Amino acid sequence: MSYASQLLDSYPRTFDVDAGILTAAIDALNDCAQACTADADDDLSEPEVAEMVKCIRLCLDCASICTTTAGVASRQTENDPSVSKSLLEACIASCRSSGDECERHATTHAHCQVCAQACRRCEQACRQLLDAMS
Amino acid sequence: MSYASQLLDSYPRTFDVDAGILTAAIDALNDCAQACTADADDDLSEPEVAEMVKCIRLCLDCASICTTTAGVASRQTENDPSVSKSLLEACIASCRSSGDECERHATTHAHCQVCAQACRRCEQACRQLLDAMS
Amino acid sequence: MSYASQLLDSYPRTFDVDAGILTAAIDALNDCAQACTADADDDLSEPEVAEMVKCIRLCLDCASICTTTAGVASRQTENDPSVSKSLLEACIASCRSSGDECERHATTHAHCQVCAQACRRCEQACRQLLDAMS
Amino acid sequence: MSYASQLLDSYPRTFDVDAGILTAAIDALNDCAQACTADADDDLSEPEVAEMVKCIRLCLDCASICTTTAGVASRQTENDPSVSKSLLEACIASCRSSGDECERHATTHAHCQVCAQACRRCEQACRQLLDAMS
Repeated sequence: MSYASQLLDSYPRTFDVDAGILTAAIDALNDCAQACTADADDDLSEPEVAEMVKCIRLCLDCASICTTTAGVASRQTENDPSVSKSLLEACIASCRSSGDECERHATTHAHCQVCAQACRRCEQACRQLLDAMS
Repeated sequence: MSYASQLLDSYPRTFDVDAGILTAAIDALNDCAQACTADADDDLSEPEVAEMVKCIRLCLDCASICTTTAGVASRQTENDPSVSKSLLEACIASCRSSGDECERHATTHAHCQVCAQACRRCEQACRQLLDAMS
Repeated sequence: MSYASQLLDSYPRTFDVDAGILTAAIDALNDCAQACTADADDDLSEPEVAEMVKCIRLCLDCASICTTTAGVASRQTENDPSVSKSLLEACIASCRSSGDECERHATTHAHCQVCAQACRRCEQACRQLLDAMS
Repeated sequence: MSYASQLLDSYPRTFDVDAGILTAAIDALNDCAQACTADADDDLSEPEVAEMVKCIRLCLDCASICTTTAGVASRQTENDPSVSKSLLEACIASCRSSGDECERHATTHAHCQVCAQACRRCEQACRQLLDAMS
Protein backbone atom coordinates (compact mmCIF):
# COMPACT_ATOMS: atom_id res chain seq x y z
CA MET A 1 0.00 0.00 0.00
CA SER A 2 1.51 3.33 -1.05
CA TYR A 3 2.20 6.15 1.42
CA ALA A 4 -0.44 8.24 -0.37
CA SER A 5 -2.97 5.54 0.46
CA GLN A 6 -1.80 5.04 4.07
CA LEU A 7 -1.88 8.75 4.82
CA LEU A 8 -5.30 9.21 3.26
CA ASP A 9 -6.59 6.34 5.41
CA SER A 10 -5.65 8.25 8.56
CA TYR A 11 -6.93 11.66 7.45
CA PRO A 12 -8.79 13.14 10.46
CA ARG A 13 -11.76 14.61 8.58
CA THR A 14 -13.98 13.29 5.79
CA PHE A 15 -13.52 14.06 2.10
CA ASP A 16 -15.99 13.69 -0.72
CA VAL A 17 -14.02 12.02 -3.51
CA ASP A 18 -13.47 8.26 -3.96
CA ALA A 19 -10.30 7.33 -1.99
CA GLY A 20 -9.18 4.71 -4.53
CA ILE A 21 -9.37 7.14 -7.46
CA LEU A 22 -7.61 9.83 -5.47
CA THR A 23 -4.70 7.67 -4.34
CA ALA A 24 -4.32 6.19 -7.83
CA ALA A 25 -3.97 9.74 -9.18
CA ILE A 26 -1.46 10.82 -6.52
CA ASP A 27 0.66 7.70 -7.10
CA ALA A 28 0.55 8.18 -10.90
CA LEU A 29 1.51 11.85 -10.49
CA ASN A 30 4.54 11.02 -8.34
CA ASP A 31 5.56 8.23 -10.75
CA CYS A 32 5.26 10.55 -13.74
CA ALA A 33 7.26 13.32 -12.04
CA GLN A 34 10.05 10.82 -11.36
CA ALA A 35 9.94 9.38 -14.91
CA CYS A 36 10.06 12.84 -16.53
CA THR A 37 12.91 14.08 -14.30
CA ALA A 38 14.98 11.00 -15.12
CA ASP A 39 14.05 10.98 -18.82
CA ALA A 40 15.10 14.63 -19.27
CA ASP A 41 18.48 13.64 -17.80
CA ASP A 42 18.70 10.51 -19.99
CA ASP A 43 18.02 12.75 -23.02
CA LEU A 44 20.79 15.12 -21.91
CA SER A 45 23.31 12.28 -22.02
CA GLU A 46 22.36 11.07 -25.53
CA PRO A 47 25.05 11.66 -28.19
CA GLU A 48 22.41 13.31 -30.41
CA VAL A 49 21.23 15.67 -27.68
CA ALA A 50 20.18 18.37 -30.19
CA GLU A 51 17.37 16.08 -31.39
CA MET A 52 16.13 15.67 -27.80
CA VAL A 53 15.72 19.36 -26.93
CA LYS A 54 11.93 19.38 -27.28
CA CYS A 55 11.65 16.19 -25.22
CA ILE A 56 13.86 17.66 -22.45
CA ARG A 57 11.82 20.86 -22.27
CA LEU A 58 8.43 19.13 -22.17
CA CYS A 59 9.65 16.62 -19.56
CA LEU A 60 10.95 19.44 -17.33
CA ASP A 61 7.51 21.10 -17.52
CA CYS A 62 5.71 17.81 -16.87
CA ALA A 63 7.88 16.86 -13.88
CA SER A 64 7.24 20.20 -12.20
CA ILE A 65 3.51 20.27 -12.97
CA CYS A 66 3.03 16.67 -11.74
CA THR A 67 4.86 17.37 -8.46
CA THR A 68 2.75 20.47 -7.84
CA THR A 69 -0.47 18.65 -8.77
CA ALA A 70 0.42 15.74 -6.45
CA GLY A 71 0.83 18.26 -3.62
CA VAL A 72 -2.48 19.98 -4.28
CA ALA A 73 -4.30 16.63 -4.65
CA SER A 74 -2.73 15.38 -1.40
CA ARG A 75 -4.13 18.31 0.57
CA GLN A 76 -7.75 17.64 1.51
CA THR A 77 -8.12 20.36 4.12
CA GLU A 78 -10.19 23.34 2.86
CA ASN A 79 -9.82 22.16 -0.73
CA ASP A 80 -10.94 24.67 -3.39
CA PRO A 81 -12.26 22.62 -6.37
CA SER A 82 -11.82 25.60 -8.75
CA VAL A 83 -8.07 25.38 -8.13
CA SER A 84 -7.70 21.57 -8.14
CA LYS A 85 -9.82 21.11 -11.25
CA SER A 86 -8.03 23.70 -13.37
CA LEU A 87 -4.67 22.35 -12.23
CA LEU A 88 -5.73 18.81 -13.19
CA GLU A 89 -6.66 20.19 -16.65
CA ALA A 90 -3.19 21.74 -16.98
CA CYS A 91 -1.57 18.49 -15.83
CA ILE A 92 -3.55 16.48 -18.39
CA ALA A 93 -2.36 18.86 -21.14
CA SER A 94 1.23 18.53 -19.98
CA CYS A 95 1.15 14.71 -19.73
CA ARG A 96 -0.36 14.51 -23.21
CA SER A 97 2.24 16.83 -24.72
CA SER A 98 5.14 15.14 -22.98
CA GLY A 99 3.76 11.64 -23.72
CA ASP A 100 3.39 12.45 -27.44
CA GLU A 101 6.97 13.68 -27.73
CA CYS A 102 8.39 10.73 -25.74
CA GLU A 103 6.46 8.34 -27.98
CA ARG A 104 8.17 9.81 -31.08
CA HIS A 105 11.49 8.61 -29.61
CA ALA A 106 10.21 5.34 -28.12
CA THR A 107 11.64 3.06 -30.81
CA THR A 108 15.16 4.54 -30.55
CA HIS A 109 15.33 5.27 -26.80
CA ALA A 110 14.04 2.79 -24.22
CA HIS A 111 13.95 5.56 -21.58
CA CYS A 112 11.51 7.56 -23.71
CA GLN A 113 9.29 4.48 -24.07
CA VAL A 114 9.14 4.07 -20.29
CA CYS A 115 8.47 7.78 -19.79
CA ALA A 116 5.73 7.83 -22.44
CA GLN A 117 4.00 5.04 -20.51
CA ALA A 118 4.21 6.97 -17.23
CA CYS A 119 2.77 10.08 -18.95
CA ARG A 120 -0.15 8.11 -20.46
CA ARG A 121 -1.00 6.49 -17.13
CA CYS A 122 -0.84 9.83 -15.34
CA GLU A 123 -3.00 11.56 -17.95
CA GLN A 124 -5.62 8.82 -17.53
CA ALA A 125 -5.50 8.86 -13.72
CA CYS A 126 -5.88 12.67 -13.66
CA ARG A 127 -8.84 12.48 -16.01
CA GLN A 128 -10.51 9.88 -13.79
CA LEU A 129 -9.98 12.08 -10.74
CA LEU A 130 -11.35 15.10 -12.59
CA ASP A 131 -14.43 13.10 -13.64
CA ALA A 132 -14.92 11.89 -10.06
CA MET A 133 -14.80 15.49 -8.79
CA SER A 134 -17.43 16.78 -11.24
CA MET B 1 16.34 45.16 -14.15
CA SER B 2 15.24 41.76 -12.85
CA TYR B 3 17.11 38.55 -13.65
CA ALA B 4 14.05 37.35 -15.59
CA SER B 5 14.42 40.40 -17.82
CA GLN B 6 18.20 40.12 -18.19
CA LEU B 7 18.05 36.44 -19.09
CA LEU B 8 15.27 36.96 -21.60
CA ASP B 9 17.34 39.72 -23.25
CA SER B 10 20.10 37.23 -23.96
CA TYR B 11 17.88 34.35 -25.13
CA PRO B 12 19.57 32.91 -28.27
CA ARG B 13 16.42 32.37 -30.36
CA THR B 14 13.37 34.54 -31.04
CA PHE B 15 10.04 34.23 -29.19
CA ASP B 16 6.65 35.52 -30.19
CA VAL B 17 5.26 37.08 -27.03
CA ASP B 18 5.87 40.65 -25.80
CA ALA B 19 9.03 40.59 -23.65
CA GLY B 20 7.74 43.24 -21.23
CA ILE B 21 4.52 41.36 -20.52
CA LEU B 22 6.40 38.08 -20.15
CA THR B 23 9.00 39.38 -17.69
CA ALA B 24 6.30 41.23 -15.70
CA ALA B 25 4.46 37.92 -15.32
CA ILE B 26 7.57 35.94 -14.32
CA ASP B 27 8.52 38.59 -11.73
CA ALA B 28 4.98 38.68 -10.33
CA LEU B 29 4.90 34.86 -10.15
CA ASN B 30 8.17 34.71 -8.20
CA ASP B 31 7.00 37.52 -5.90
CA CYS B 32 3.70 35.76 -5.24
CA ALA B 33 5.39 32.42 -4.54
CA GLN B 34 7.59 34.13 -1.95
CA ALA B 35 4.67 36.05 -0.40
CA CYS B 36 2.52 32.91 -0.10
CA THR B 37 5.33 30.78 1.35
CA ALA B 38 6.04 33.42 4.00
CA ASP B 39 2.37 34.17 4.70
CA ALA B 40 1.58 30.48 5.30
CA ASP B 41 4.38 30.50 7.89
CA ASP B 42 3.17 33.78 9.44
CA ASP B 43 -0.28 32.19 9.75
CA LEU B 44 1.25 29.15 11.46
CA SER B 45 2.71 31.36 14.17
CA GLU B 46 -0.53 33.23 14.92
CA PRO B 47 -2.04 32.47 18.36
CA GLU B 48 -5.40 31.76 16.67
CA VAL B 49 -3.89 29.32 14.16
CA ALA B 50 -7.14 27.31 13.87
CA GLU B 51 -8.78 30.30 12.15
CA MET B 52 -5.94 30.46 9.62
CA VAL B 53 -6.11 26.85 8.36
CA LYS B 54 -7.86 27.71 5.10
CA CYS B 55 -5.42 30.55 4.44
CA ILE B 56 -2.42 28.26 5.08
CA ARG B 57 -3.73 25.59 2.72
CA LEU B 58 -4.54 27.98 -0.13
CA CYS B 59 -1.19 29.77 0.25
CA LEU B 60 0.70 26.45 0.09
CA ASP B 61 -1.14 25.63 -3.15
CA CYS B 62 -0.53 29.10 -4.58
CA ALA B 63 3.19 29.13 -3.73
CA SER B 64 3.73 25.79 -5.47
CA ILE B 65 1.61 26.65 -8.52
CA CYS B 66 3.31 30.05 -8.95
CA THR B 67 6.81 28.52 -8.77
CA THR B 68 5.89 25.90 -11.36
CA THR B 69 4.23 28.49 -13.62
CA ALA B 70 7.28 30.78 -13.36
CA GLY B 71 9.44 27.87 -14.52
CA VAL B 72 7.21 26.99 -17.47
CA ALA B 73 6.91 30.68 -18.48
CA SER B 74 10.69 31.09 -18.23
CA ARG B 75 11.30 28.28 -20.73
CA GLN B 76 10.91 29.60 -24.27
CA THR B 77 12.54 26.67 -26.06
CA GLU B 78 9.98 24.42 -27.82
CA ASN B 79 7.15 25.98 -25.85
CA ASP B 80 3.78 24.17 -26.11
CA PRO B 81 1.06 26.86 -25.77
CA SER B 82 -1.57 24.24 -24.81
CA VAL B 83 0.46 23.55 -21.66
CA SER B 84 1.42 27.14 -20.79
CA LYS B 85 -2.08 28.49 -21.35
CA SER B 86 -3.87 25.90 -19.23
CA LEU B 87 -1.27 26.30 -16.48
CA LEU B 88 -1.78 30.08 -16.54
CA GLU B 89 -5.54 29.46 -16.14
CA ALA B 90 -4.86 27.26 -13.10
CA CYS B 91 -2.50 29.86 -11.66
CA ILE B 92 -5.11 32.61 -12.09
CA ALA B 93 -7.66 30.44 -10.22
CA SER B 94 -5.17 29.80 -7.42
CA CYS B 95 -4.15 33.48 -7.06
CA ARG B 96 -7.82 34.50 -6.96
CA SER B 97 -8.69 31.91 -4.31
CA SER B 98 -5.65 32.68 -2.18
CA GLY B 99 -6.07 36.46 -2.63
CA ASP B 100 -9.75 36.27 -1.56
CA GLU B 101 -8.92 34.37 1.62
CA CYS B 102 -5.96 36.62 2.51
CA GLU B 103 -8.18 39.66 2.01
CA ARG B 104 -10.63 38.31 4.61
CA HIS B 105 -7.80 38.54 7.19
CA ALA B 106 -6.25 41.78 5.88
CA THR B 107 -7.62 44.05 8.60
CA THR B 108 -6.38 41.82 11.46
CA HIS B 109 -3.10 40.53 9.96
CA ALA B 110 -0.73 42.85 8.08
CA HIS B 111 1.02 39.81 6.52
CA CYS B 112 -2.25 38.72 4.91
CA GLN B 113 -2.75 42.21 3.50
CA VAL B 114 0.68 42.13 1.86
CA CYS B 115 0.07 38.61 0.54
CA ALA B 116 -3.36 39.55 -0.86
CA GLN B 117 -1.68 42.34 -2.82
CA ALA B 118 0.94 39.95 -4.24
CA CYS B 119 -1.84 37.51 -5.27
CA ARG B 120 -3.88 40.26 -7.00
CA ARG B 121 -0.85 41.53 -8.92
CA CYS B 122 0.10 38.03 -9.98
CA GLU B 123 -3.45 37.18 -11.09
CA GLN B 124 -3.48 40.33 -13.23
CA ALA B 125 0.00 39.73 -14.71
CA CYS B 126 -0.91 36.12 -15.61
CA ARG B 127 -4.11 37.28 -17.27
CA GLN B 128 -2.20 39.85 -19.33
CA LEU B 129 0.27 37.17 -20.42
CA LEU B 130 -2.57 34.82 -21.32
CA ASP B 131 -4.24 37.57 -23.38
CA ALA B 132 -0.95 38.34 -25.13
CA MET B 133 -0.54 34.64 -26.05
CA SER B 134 -3.99 34.30 -27.59
CA MET C 1 9.95 -2.31 -10.60
CA SER C 2 9.73 1.44 -9.87
CA TYR C 3 10.06 4.09 -12.58
CA ALA C 4 13.31 5.25 -10.93
CA SER C 5 14.68 1.75 -11.48
CA GLN C 6 13.36 1.40 -15.04
CA LEU C 7 14.75 4.76 -16.11
CA LEU C 8 18.14 4.09 -14.56
CA ASP C 9 18.29 0.77 -16.43
CA SER C 10 18.03 2.62 -19.74
CA TYR C 11 20.49 5.44 -18.91
CA PRO C 12 22.70 5.89 -22.00
CA ARG C 13 26.04 6.37 -20.18
CA THR C 14 27.68 4.56 -17.28
CA PHE C 15 27.58 5.75 -13.66
CA ASP C 16 29.79 4.78 -10.76
CA VAL C 17 27.39 4.16 -7.89
CA ASP C 18 25.53 0.91 -7.14
CA ALA C 19 22.22 1.01 -9.07
CA GLY C 20 20.27 -0.82 -6.34
CA ILE C 21 21.36 1.60 -3.62
CA LEU C 22 20.65 4.59 -5.87
CA THR C 23 17.14 3.51 -6.86
CA ALA C 24 16.31 2.55 -3.26
CA ALA C 25 17.27 6.10 -2.21
CA ILE C 26 15.28 7.78 -5.00
CA ASP C 27 12.20 5.68 -4.18
CA ALA C 28 12.53 6.41 -0.45
CA LEU C 29 12.93 10.13 -1.17
CA ASN C 30 9.77 10.26 -3.29
CA ASP C 31 7.86 8.23 -0.67
CA CYS C 32 9.01 10.54 2.12
CA ALA C 33 8.10 13.69 0.16
CA GLN C 34 4.58 12.30 -0.35
CA ALA C 35 4.24 11.22 3.30
CA CYS C 36 5.40 14.61 4.63
CA THR C 37 3.15 16.59 2.26
CA ALA C 38 0.13 14.54 3.31
CA ASP C 39 1.05 14.51 7.01
CA ALA C 40 1.38 18.31 7.12
CA ASP C 41 -2.16 18.47 5.70
CA ASP C 42 -3.43 15.84 8.14
CA ASP C 43 -1.95 17.92 10.98
CA LEU C 44 -3.72 21.03 9.63
CA SER C 45 -7.07 19.29 9.97
CA GLU C 46 -6.55 18.13 13.55
CA PRO C 47 -8.81 19.85 16.13
CA GLU C 48 -5.72 20.63 18.25
CA VAL C 49 -3.82 22.19 15.34
CA ALA C 50 -1.84 24.54 17.62
CA GLU C 51 -0.02 21.50 19.06
CA MET C 52 0.93 20.37 15.54
CA VAL C 53 2.61 23.59 14.36
CA LYS C 54 6.17 22.27 14.76
CA CYS C 55 5.24 19.04 12.99
CA ILE C 56 3.67 20.97 10.08
CA ARG C 57 6.72 23.19 9.64
CA LEU C 58 9.27 20.37 9.75
CA CYS C 59 7.18 18.25 7.35
CA LEU C 60 6.94 21.15 4.87
CA ASP C 61 10.74 21.47 4.95
CA CYS C 62 11.25 17.71 4.63
CA ALA C 63 8.83 17.35 1.69
CA SER C 64 10.59 20.10 -0.25
CA ILE C 65 14.12 18.90 0.56
CA CYS C 66 13.26 15.27 -0.35
CA THR C 67 11.75 16.30 -3.71
CA THR C 68 14.83 18.37 -4.56
CA THR C 69 17.19 15.60 -3.43
CA ALA C 70 15.28 13.02 -5.51
CA GLY C 71 15.74 15.27 -8.55
CA VAL C 72 19.48 15.74 -7.98
CA ALA C 73 19.99 12.01 -7.30
CA SER C 74 18.02 11.14 -10.45
CA ARG C 75 20.35 13.20 -12.65
CA GLN C 76 23.47 11.21 -13.45
CA THR C 77 24.75 13.39 -16.28
CA GLU C 78 27.76 15.52 -15.24
CA ASN C 79 27.05 14.86 -11.58
CA ASP C 80 29.04 17.01 -9.12
CA PRO C 81 29.57 14.89 -5.96
CA SER C 82 30.28 18.00 -3.85
CA VAL C 83 26.68 19.09 -4.51
CA SER C 84 24.97 15.69 -4.18
CA LYS C 85 26.84 14.75 -1.01
CA SER C 86 26.12 17.98 0.85
CA LEU C 87 22.49 17.84 -0.23
CA LEU C 88 22.22 14.25 1.04
CA GLU C 89 23.64 15.47 4.38
CA ALA C 90 20.96 18.19 4.54
CA CYS C 91 18.28 15.67 3.64
CA ILE C 92 19.42 13.29 6.38
CA ALA C 93 19.22 16.16 8.92
CA SER C 94 15.73 17.04 7.72
CA CYS C 95 14.44 13.45 7.80
CA ARG C 96 15.84 13.01 11.32
CA SER C 97 14.26 16.22 12.60
CA SER C 98 10.91 15.53 10.96
CA GLY C 99 10.97 11.85 11.99
CA ASP C 100 11.67 12.78 15.63
CA GLU C 101 8.77 15.23 15.77
CA CYS C 102 6.35 12.83 14.03
CA GLU C 103 7.34 10.10 16.47
CA ARG C 104 6.33 12.33 19.41
CA HIS C 105 2.76 12.30 18.00
CA ALA C 106 2.76 8.68 16.82
CA THR C 107 0.66 7.28 19.66
CA THR C 108 -2.10 9.90 19.24
CA HIS C 109 -2.06 10.34 15.44
CA ALA C 110 -1.79 7.35 13.07
CA HIS C 111 -0.76 9.67 10.22
CA CYS C 112 2.27 10.82 12.20
CA GLN C 113 3.25 7.22 12.86
CA VAL C 114 3.17 6.44 9.12
CA CYS C 115 5.12 9.61 8.33
CA ALA C 116 7.75 8.89 11.00
CA GLN C 117 8.31 5.52 9.35
CA ALA C 118 8.76 7.14 5.90
CA CYS C 119 11.25 9.63 7.38
CA ARG C 120 13.30 6.90 9.10
CA ARG C 121 13.47 4.80 5.92
CA CYS C 122 14.49 7.81 3.87
CA GLU C 123 17.16 8.88 6.35
CA GLN C 124 18.63 5.36 6.21
CA ALA C 125 18.46 5.12 2.40
CA CYS C 126 20.17 8.52 2.01
CA ARG C 127 22.92 7.49 4.43
CA GLN C 128 23.51 4.29 2.47
CA LEU C 129 23.75 6.25 -0.77
CA LEU C 130 26.14 8.72 0.84
CA ASP C 131 28.32 5.85 2.11
CA ALA C 132 28.29 4.26 -1.36
CA MET C 133 29.45 7.54 -2.92
CA SER C 134 32.41 8.01 -0.57
CA MET D 1 11.09 46.73 -0.51
CA SER D 2 10.86 43.07 -1.54
CA TYR D 3 7.97 40.81 -0.51
CA ALA D 4 10.43 38.75 1.58
CA SER D 5 11.22 41.90 3.54
CA GLN D 6 7.58 43.04 3.87
CA LEU D 7 6.42 39.62 5.07
CA LEU D 8 9.26 39.33 7.57
CA ASP D 9 8.35 42.77 8.95
CA SER D 10 4.87 41.51 9.84
CA TYR D 11 5.95 38.13 11.29
CA PRO D 12 3.90 37.66 14.51
CA ARG D 13 6.68 36.22 16.68
CA THR D 14 10.32 37.21 17.22
CA PHE D 15 13.26 35.57 15.46
CA ASP D 16 16.92 35.61 16.41
CA VAL D 17 18.73 36.32 13.14
CA ASP D 18 19.41 39.77 11.61
CA ALA D 19 16.40 40.66 9.43
CA GLY D 20 18.51 42.45 6.80
CA ILE D 21 20.85 39.49 6.31
CA LEU D 22 17.90 37.09 6.19
CA THR D 23 15.91 39.01 3.58
CA ALA D 24 19.04 39.61 1.48
CA ALA D 25 19.59 35.83 1.43
CA ILE D 26 15.96 35.04 0.54
CA ASP D 27 15.97 37.61 -2.28
CA ALA D 28 19.30 36.32 -3.62
CA LEU D 29 18.00 32.73 -3.48
CA ASN D 30 14.86 33.60 -5.46
CA ASP D 31 16.92 35.59 -7.99
CA CYS D 32 19.36 32.72 -8.42
CA ALA D 33 16.59 30.16 -8.88
CA GLN D 34 15.10 32.33 -11.63
CA ALA D 35 18.47 32.93 -13.30
CA CYS D 36 19.38 29.21 -13.29
CA THR D 37 15.96 28.12 -14.62
CA ALA D 38 16.20 30.62 -17.49
CA ASP D 39 19.88 29.93 -18.18
CA ALA D 40 19.30 26.17 -18.48
CA ASP D 41 16.65 26.97 -21.08
CA ASP D 42 18.93 29.46 -22.89
CA ASP D 43 21.58 26.72 -23.02
CA LEU D 44 19.03 24.29 -24.49
CA SER D 45 18.43 26.65 -27.39
CA GLU D 46 22.11 27.15 -28.25
CA PRO D 47 23.20 25.62 -31.60
CA GLU D 48 26.09 23.91 -29.78
CA VAL D 49 23.86 22.38 -27.09
CA ALA D 50 26.17 19.37 -26.59
CA GLU D 51 28.80 21.70 -25.10
CA MET D 52 26.25 23.09 -22.65
CA VAL D 53 25.12 19.78 -21.09
CA LYS D 54 27.13 20.22 -17.88
CA CYS D 55 25.87 23.80 -17.51
CA ILE D 56 22.24 22.69 -18.00
CA ARG D 57 22.54 19.95 -15.40
CA LEU D 58 24.21 22.11 -12.75
CA CYS D 59 21.70 24.94 -13.33
CA LEU D 60 18.76 22.54 -12.93
CA ASP D 61 20.22 21.39 -9.60
CA CYS D 62 20.91 24.96 -8.46
CA ALA D 63 17.44 26.26 -9.38
CA SER D 64 15.77 23.49 -7.39
CA ILE D 65 18.11 23.76 -4.38
CA CYS D 66 17.74 27.58 -4.25
CA THR D 67 13.92 27.39 -4.37
CA THR D 68 13.89 24.83 -1.55
CA THR D 69 16.39 26.84 0.50
CA ALA D 70 14.36 30.05 0.02
CA GLY D 71 11.31 28.20 1.37
CA VAL D 72 13.13 26.84 4.43
CA ALA D 73 14.75 30.25 5.13
CA SER D 74 11.35 31.96 4.78
CA ARG D 75 9.84 29.78 7.50
CA GLN D 76 10.73 31.15 10.92
CA THR D 77 8.18 29.17 12.94
CA GLU D 78 9.79 26.32 14.93
CA ASN D 79 12.97 26.58 12.86
CA ASP D 80 15.47 23.72 13.33
CA PRO D 81 18.97 25.21 12.81
CA SER D 82 20.47 21.75 12.12
CA VAL D 83 18.27 21.58 9.00
CA SER D 84 18.65 25.18 7.81
CA LYS D 85 22.41 25.23 8.31
CA SER D 86 23.12 22.01 6.44
CA LEU D 87 20.80 23.08 3.63
CA LEU D 88 22.62 26.42 3.37
CA GLU D 89 25.89 24.47 3.09
CA ALA D 90 24.42 22.41 0.23
CA CYS D 91 23.15 25.56 -1.46
CA ILE D 92 26.57 27.21 -1.21
CA ALA D 93 28.15 24.12 -2.85
CA SER D 94 25.55 24.20 -5.63
CA CYS D 95 25.92 27.95 -6.32
CA ARG D 96 29.70 27.58 -6.45
CA SER D 97 29.54 24.63 -8.84
CA SER D 98 26.96 26.26 -11.08
CA GLY D 99 28.70 29.64 -10.94
CA ASP D 100 32.05 28.08 -11.94
CA GLU D 101 30.54 26.32 -14.96
CA CYS D 102 28.58 29.42 -16.08
CA GLU D 103 31.74 31.48 -15.81
CA ARG D 104 33.51 29.14 -18.26
CA HIS D 105 30.90 30.15 -20.88
CA ALA D 106 30.63 33.82 -19.87
CA THR D 107 32.69 35.20 -22.75
CA THR D 108 30.69 33.35 -25.43
CA HIS D 109 27.19 33.44 -23.87
CA ALA D 110 25.84 36.61 -22.23
CA HIS D 111 23.14 34.54 -20.45
CA CYS D 112 25.83 32.49 -18.70
CA GLN D 113 27.58 35.68 -17.60
CA VAL D 114 24.35 36.96 -16.01
CA CYS D 115 23.69 33.58 -14.37
CA ALA D 116 27.26 33.34 -13.02
CA GLN D 117 26.71 36.71 -11.34
CA ALA D 118 23.43 35.53 -9.74
CA CYS D 119 25.16 32.37 -8.46
CA ARG D 120 28.09 34.34 -6.95
CA ARG D 121 25.73 36.76 -5.20
CA CYS D 122 23.62 33.93 -3.84
CA GLU D 123 26.65 31.97 -2.62
CA GLN D 124 27.83 35.06 -0.75
CA ALA D 125 24.39 35.86 0.72
CA CYS D 126 23.96 32.27 1.93
CA ARG D 127 27.39 32.34 3.55
CA GLN D 128 26.56 35.58 5.35
CA LEU D 129 23.31 34.07 6.62
CA LEU D 130 25.13 30.94 7.76
CA ASP D 131 27.72 33.06 9.61
CA ALA D 132 24.93 35.11 11.24
CA MET D 133 23.26 31.89 12.45
CA SER D 134 26.39 30.47 14.09
